[in-house]
Amino acid sequence: MSSRMAGSVLLRRAGAGASRLFATTPSPAARAVLGGGEGAWVRLMSTSAASQVKDEAAKAVKAEAAKGDGEKKEVAISSYWGIEQSKKLVREDGTEWKWSCFRPWETYTADTSIDLTKHHVPNTMLDKIAYYTVKSLRFPTDIFFQRRYGCRAMMLETVAAVPGMVGGMLLHLRSLRRFEQSGGWIRALLEEAENERMHLMTFMEVAQPRWYERALVIAVQGVFFNAYFFGYLISPKFAHRVVGYLEEEAVHSYTEFLKDLDDGKIDNVPAPAIAIDYWRLPANATLKDVVTVVRADEAHHRDVNHFASDVYYQGMQLKATPAPIGYH
Amino acid sequence: MSSRMAGSVLLRRAGAGASRLFATTPSPAARAVLGGGEGAWVRLMSTSAASQVKDEAAKAVKAEAAKGDGEKKEVAISSYWGIEQSKKLVREDGTEWKWSCFRPWETYTADTSIDLTKHHVPNTMLDKIAYYTVKSLRFPTDIFFQRRYGCRAMMLETVAAVPGMVGGMLLHLRSLRRFEQSGGWIRALLEEAENERMHLMTFMEVAQPRWYERALVIAVQGVFFNAYFFGYLISPKFAHRVVGYLEEEAVHSYTEFLKDLDDGKIDNVPAPAIAIDYWRLPANATLKDVVTVVRADEAHHRDVNHFASDVYYQGMQLKATPAPIGYH
Repeated sequence: MSSRMAGSVLLRRAGAGASRLFATTPSPAARAVLGGGEGAWVRLMSTSAASQVKDEAAKAVKAEAAKGDGEKKEVAISSYWGIEQSKKLVREDGTEWKWSCFRPWETYTADTSIDLTKHHVPNTMLDKIAYYTVKSLRFPTDIFFQRRYGCRAMMLETVAAVPGMVGGMLLHLRSLRRFEQSGGWIRALLEEAENERMHLMTFMEVAQPRWYERALVIAVQGVFFNAYFFGYLISPKFAHRVVGYLEEEAVHSYTEFLKDLDDGKIDNVPAPAIAIDYWRLPANATLKDVVTVVRADEAHHRDVNHFASDVYYQGMQLKATPAPIGYH
Repeated sequence: MSSRMAGSVLLRRAGAGASRLFATTPSPAARAVLGGGEGAWVRLMSTSAASQVKDEAAKAVKAEAAKGDGEKKEVAISSYWGIEQSKKLVREDGTEWKWSCFRPWETYTADTSIDLTKHHVPNTMLDKIAYYTVKSLRFPTDIFFQRRYGCRAMMLETVAAVPGMVGGMLLHLRSLRRFEQSGGWIRALLEEAENERMHLMTFMEVAQPRWYERALVIAVQGVFFNAYFFGYLISPKFAHRVVGYLEEEAVHSYTEFLKDLDDGKIDNVPAPAIAIDYWRLPANATLKDVVTVVRADEAHHRDVNHFASDVYYQGMQLKATPAPIGYH
């Protein structure tokens, strides 16, 4: 873990704490790491937030009094819980944090050392069905997109972000129904979904969808969400295997994407600002760097889902095997 | 933020980083905070994980070779991604972290200073419908549980954990369909759901559900999940308001719970171990302490949901107003 990474991980989290417990001065432990420039926004949060508490409290009172008063509703909103956190966040360099769809402590440095060639050989009939289902889905996709990989990536991420959310939700509901714990799998699958959504937020910046692509996404989501929902209810073993193979294909597609970037068939444009902040990339990062870290994410999801399927193959429930941590 | 809190927030997060980037030595920034006893498990993770990498890598190779070999499948599983993270986690005092359903860095100190009496006065017809719907649901609940608050809390948390998950999922799917960002609301609602699920995991320890209660939960979830799902599709403004009022009732119920604990009508048993770890309570904490922090959580959810409804009343989408951060 690089010094920059470690320092910022620590500080970003301190920021999270500060945002919740804002009316305090930095504790000794916090001050210990506030020396570095990375500490700037933690200090900023603690102090500015502290100074803000009174005004906000005052506003909150006004707000309560003004309930239902059209003109003053704005005040009521901005002060409902006494602090506008998004205003407090700043980057490590002190500039304001411009994203509300993700926070500094959700960013990370992708582990690109992961084995990209790993493949789960389909042995059972169920595995083979999963494998050839995914393979057969490749043809229409290839025909539709050819080598427009930017657009292709954007479209595929709208699908890739569905399984984690469906699986996480179903495990959550199961956990509630059965009064049993999840082994951390709910959080793991939800994080996969959020990570895939961040991929989409990134590729949106490099490829604007056309009207018929937007229409296609809505249709595909309607079908795929329901298919995966019921598929997961019937056989999570099969569902996770399918996702494992989908991710293997994703790794392949992003490798092709990188080839075309290397060959200059696709312009290696500068990385979108959102990608630089999310993956903690250097300011001069390019599309190639983005595709590289996204591919690493997909390889991680591949492993998690094949693993989940393997757990079921062992006749176990996921909760019996602790989920991977921050595994993307 | 107390020194203990700040220190541990920093370190727990460092652990999260370490778990992802395990084959490294602690960075200067990490070492800076590794002095305290709280640093113990971060160091432990970095080193033990580092030493583990080779064996695991070796195992992984074996595993790949052994794919489909029944006897060796176990190996394949334990080493699919090269590290058994759950084995690495330990508490601040160095003892092993025993929970896989939540991780050290998901724990927090509840902000019990929140105003428990806050009430959103229903002004519009929609608000009144939401208010009286919730109020009318109170009667059957009161009749069913009377003052068995432990059991009541457990049952109600199985319902309370549904809206956040449904809302978060629908916003996630919307974000994918529309190629638009979420303002952090997906994460905020999912965190609400996970927090409510942790309430359930806690109350499970103090009140074991009976068979007919388990049956009731399944029936209620079947109805409520679908009702809230379609309700949220039709009017998120109404859905969030209903949850806001549900949380107001929850705050009321937990206050009654505390009264009975004070009056000795309910034994103030020691707090379950899971609660002590999740809310960072002292080792000698009791059920009263647990109910107090749970009530604070519900009050926070009350504010978030009333706020969300207010945003829609302003004719805005949630994404237009950044979501609260770690707000439970």
